[in-house]
Amino acid sequence: MKQARYSTRGPVPQDVIACETLDTPEPGPGQVRIKVLAAPINPSDVLTLTGEYGMLPPLPAVGGNEGVGVVEAHGEGVTQPAVGQTVLIPVGAGTWSTHVVADAAKLMPLPNGVDPIQLSMLVVNPPTAALMLSEFVDLQPGEWVIQNAANSAVGGYLIQIAKARGLKTANVVRRESAIADLADSGADVLIVDGPDLHKRVAEATGKAPIRLGIDAVGGQSTENLARCLAVGGTLVNYGAMSGEPCSISPASFVFRDITLKGFWLAQWFRKAAPAQQMAVYADLAKRIATGELHARVHATYPVEAIKDAVAAAASGGRNGKIVIVPTP
Amino acid sequence: MKQARYSTRGPVPQDVIACETLDTPEPGPGQVRIKVLAAPINPSDVLTLTGEYGMLPPLPAVGGNEGVGVVEAHGEGVTQPAVGQTVLIPVGAGTWSTHVVADAAKLMPLPNGVDPIQLSMLVVNPPTAALMLSEFVDLQPGEWVIQNAANSAVGGYLIQIAKARGLKTANVVRRESAIADLADSGADVLIVDGPDLHKRVAEATGKAPIRLGIDAVGGQSTENLARCLAVGGTLVNYGAMSGEPCSISPASFVFRDITLKGFWLAQWFRKAAPAQQMAVYADLAKRIATGELHARVHATYPVEAIKDAVAAAASGGRNGKIVIVPTP
Repeated sequence: MKQARYSTRGPVPQDVIACETLDTPEPGPGQVRIKVLAAPINPSDVLTLTGEYGMLPPLPAVGGNEGVGVVEAHGEGVTQPAVGQTVLIPVGAGTWSTHVVADAAKLMPLPNGVDPIQLSMLVVNPPTAALMLSEFVDLQPGEWVIQNAANSAVGGYLIQIAKARGLKTANVVRRESAIADLADSGADVLIVDGPDLHKRVAEATGKAPIRLGIDAVGGQSTENLARCLAVGGTLVNYGAMSGEPCSISPASFVFRDITLKGFWLAQWFRKAAPAQQMAVYADLAKRIATGELHARVHATYPVEAIKDAVAAAASGGRNGKIVIVPTP
Repeated sequence: MKQARYSTRGPVPQDVIACETLDTPEPGPGQVRIKVLAAPINPSDVLTLTGEYGMLPPLPAVGGNEGVGVVEAHGEGVTQPAVGQTVLIPVGAGTWSTHVVADAAKLMPLPNGVDPIQLSMLVVNPPTAALMLSEFVDLQPGEWVIQNAANSAVGGYLIQIAKARGLKTANVVRRESAIADLADSGADVLIVDGPDLHKRVAEATGKAPIRLGIDAVGGQSTENLARCLAVGGTLVNYGAMSGEPCSISPASFVFRDITLKGFWLAQWFRKAAPAQQMAVYADLAKRIATGELHARVHATYPVEAIKDAVAAAASGGRNGKIVIVPTP
């Protein structure tokens, strides 16, 4: 089998990871072997390779945190899920690999016959978008939410989930060319970032009060977004695509009563009850299966091309996700 | 009478304000004339002169937002407060003046025979310190709070109020020389700011979890303070003495679940019930009268020297408050 492995961390993520050829493993008692169908590269995966993420696995490690596959072989005592069943690979199993061995009891069956690339992105980004829309401000149908990095994967899901909930979205991007990419995304307002963002957003939304902002950029973009919010509004940060710390003026905090908080899915996993987690994922998997939720894909790579794939994921200017597809 | 007035706003606050000589006014029906005893210059007063504050009075205006005086003359129909009674001058009356005319019904009597300079600082800074300690995190006796700008007036009150509540304070200043100024302030830990602040604070507090941080500096100091907080902690900003926006990393928000909020006393006045406001002030006035609460005074100036007084208040490196004392 082919597997993308790393034994050090460093500033250039594609330099630390490489594809290795190993014996295809046999599943032990209670285990199954899964043939991986698709596994995305998320920003958190890149930060795990550079050492900047909030949780880091012990080294050496296999890259990839989420993915889907089909059951290929049963270990001793296993009858379910059946061979040929599409399954969600457990988080953290190292999914940038042609094969994964996992405990049968930890596998969540997914509908067969659905695009595995779309299903492979279920675990991280859709719940991040869904939960940021519900965990901080009790938005009512007809209300607006504003986000930057709107052309990211989370940004795309957020537009789709907001629309399904009757919310309106103001979507901020950093370059004019990204506007066209989102033309048929369902976005209510599309706008390029800048210091006068709050004026242009007020005009585009008819001065609607916006109580929730979602920031994945940091730097001056955080303040630009804060100034779009109504007095007493909440700004939720979940990333730093600019590479800069969030910058926000005391005037926004003090005079306009803005609250700044962070969202981390790993923290939600620690706090949310298993039944709540199951309910969130069952709902999202159903919406992906029907095509209501989907992410744009920029390119797919086999495991052998892991260095090119990681380099592409770490660079800006993409129009969609990078996904590892071991057997294209 | 002498009065400090301004009719424009501008970046150099002492340039826009000047002392003028006017006829001493007679109180109308229901009014009293107050002889001003003391009126401080707060950072918010300086920001009002430069136009950077969150509320700005119409121009022309009289400087000064808080102060105390003694009743000097009654208008028609007034019997109380008696002539000679020390009173709190209503907020926003323009206190940098030898005399103020005010409605008798709006005056809060204060104990006679108490240092009027200390009493004059009752309205703004002591409740700011007291409320920041209670409105955001439900701290229990024995717990720690950390603040920067610890040698400010609010910082000094915060140390005293925290001590009275059984809380421990870690106090951050920007220069070594300020440490000596706070030697007998009651501070539990005194420490100079820097990028390794969290390591030195952890050592000085025995790694005590700190759930509340108080930031009046902004810039990199905000992040330095955030890194001292326990996971899930709250950072409250109430000023920007560095002149820079708050800088805080997504890693602090996202991975360490820090919440950043602002405190503005004017906002509390809008929300708090009058009875709650009275209770807060009665308690604080009592503590000032007994000497339990006090602020250091750097220098006092007559109204005639308002330009020098404002210039001193606007510059750093002081060791205490600038107070206008019309008749020294």
